[in-house]
Amino acid sequence: MAELRYVHGYAPEELDRLVGSANTLAALLHGDTRYPPGARVLEAGCGVGAQTRHLYERCPGVDIVSIDLARPSLMRAKAALGDAVAFVQANLYALPFGERVFDHIFLCYVLEHLPDPLGALQHLRALLKPGGTISAIEGDHGSAFWHPETAAARAAWACLQQLQTQGGGDGHIGRRLHALFRASGAVDIQVKPLPVYCDPTLPDMMDGFADKTIVGMLKGIEAEVLARNMIARDLWHQGVQDLLDLAHGDEGSFMYTFFRATALYA
Amino acid sequence: MAELRYVHGYAPEELDRLVGSANTLAALLHGDTRYPPGARVLEAGCGVGAQTRHLYERCPGVDIVSIDLARPSLMRAKAALGDAVAFVQANLYALPFGERVFDHIFLCYVLEHLPDPLGALQHLRALLKPGGTISAIEGDHGSAFWHPETAAARAAWACLQQLQTQGGGDGHIGRRLHALFRASGAVDIQVKPLPVYCDPTLPDMMDGFADKTIVGMLKGIEAEVLARNMIARDLWHQGVQDLLDLAHGDEGSFMYTFFRATALYA
Repeated sequence: MAELRYVHGYAPEELDRLVGSANTLAALLHGDTRYPPGARVLEAGCGVGAQTRHLYERCPGVDIVSIDLARPSLMRAKAALGDAVAFVQANLYALPFGERVFDHIFLCYVLEHLPDPLGALQHLRALLKPGGTISAIEGDHGSAFWHPETAAARAAWACLQQLQTQGGGDGHIGRRLHALFRASGAVDIQVKPLPVYCDPTLPDMMDGFADKTIVGMLKGIEAEVLARNMIARDLWHQGVQDLLDLAHGDEGSFMYTFFRATALYA
Repeated sequence: MAELRYVHGYAPEELDRLVGSANTLAALLHGDTRYPPGARVLEAGCGVGAQTRHLYERCPGVDIVSIDLARPSLMRAKAALGDAVAFVQANLYALPFGERVFDHIFLCYVLEHLPDPLGALQHLRALLKPGGTISAIEGDHGSAFWHPETAAARAAWACLQQLQTQGGGDGHIGRRLHALFRASGAVDIQVKPLPVYCDPTLPDMMDGFADKTIVGMLKGIEAEVLARNMIARDLWHQGVQDLLDLAHGDEGSFMYTFFRATALYA
């Protein structure tokens, strides 16, 4: 089993961030999330259930099984969603299900954290009935740019991908989704960019995304980044402050692109 | 008058590139291009008329005046579109029109090349009737990322923005559109990202955009980049080749984001 080191950690404020961010982005990320009634859907890596709620609400009559490795996250998901979804503690690389039992599999922000995302897809596809699909929503930290763009903010932001790489993940996985799904043996693959653009005419996005999601991610890794001396302390704080100023000023903009891939297996 | 040094030049193959690229991107860029019949529209900086055709075809009954500084480009536009559009040779900063005569003004890939884009907007807005709009479509070269991403391709791509900056323009202007329009006194501004994503499931985009548009831009500046010693010759050629390999291989992806801003003036 590949050890999973989750770059964002499990602090309470981080778990709140995930739910808040999921709600800010729900319309964008889940615009295409539709499974027919009666379908059996596996959500692999549900965490605190931040996406599970949207999956459940958009797909009435669907039978959802959500798994995660982290027990505290699962408990929180269960507390929020009750018996609507079957929550199971399990390892993504060794799931306690038979082959060909699911119609569809859904992942959100999972592959980016795995040392072997291709191995995970190959394991998951064995659980699919013929004609089933795997859908993955992932970000790409290299897609982010903003105005005004300061060297400090650039340096702080670069720490996220660096830390994620050190942990065996890849924060730039969005651009690799097509290649990964192709290597996993999918016969039909569709990848769609999901751009998030914020400027002062969109104050909810500036607050919910630029501040709470993007700066939120930086705050979540701050202790580890500084403990590892990945960046000078002053430069880090300046970079974070520059992004906060942008998020709450009159002239800034922030852009980030997620990707949604849907792959069909014969 | 600010001197305009057009980074892409006026070679015949470059003018062909502009028309080909406009056709590849027409559905994406002009999805929102709608002016009501009878409206008087100024296209500022029409070049060879690559966008003019789409403007004309999408807005029947609209009275279009298209201006450009470069006579050879205008001649080509006139040859392609005939009398459907009034083509006028003129300087963007000193237009031969009275104040408050246009309902709408349209610009595409123009502000990025200007040493004083704010001054241009301020000059243009004076030509608008009250309640008129200025729409601008611009790219942002800093939005580009791809897989596989080689250091050579990154270095070659960076030359484009560097050359554009040396010429007084800003290839990263997309992210600044909101701030520019705000400074120009617009009362309502909407900026929308227009992402272009290419992978091998989209061979027309890989060829029409990644190869013919993106690598096409690099080929267009090659002589000048090498003459200025902005990059080692081998590294340049390797970077261009890496992007071509990506565009015609089985595993690559390429992502670029344009922006469309529409601003209303009281």
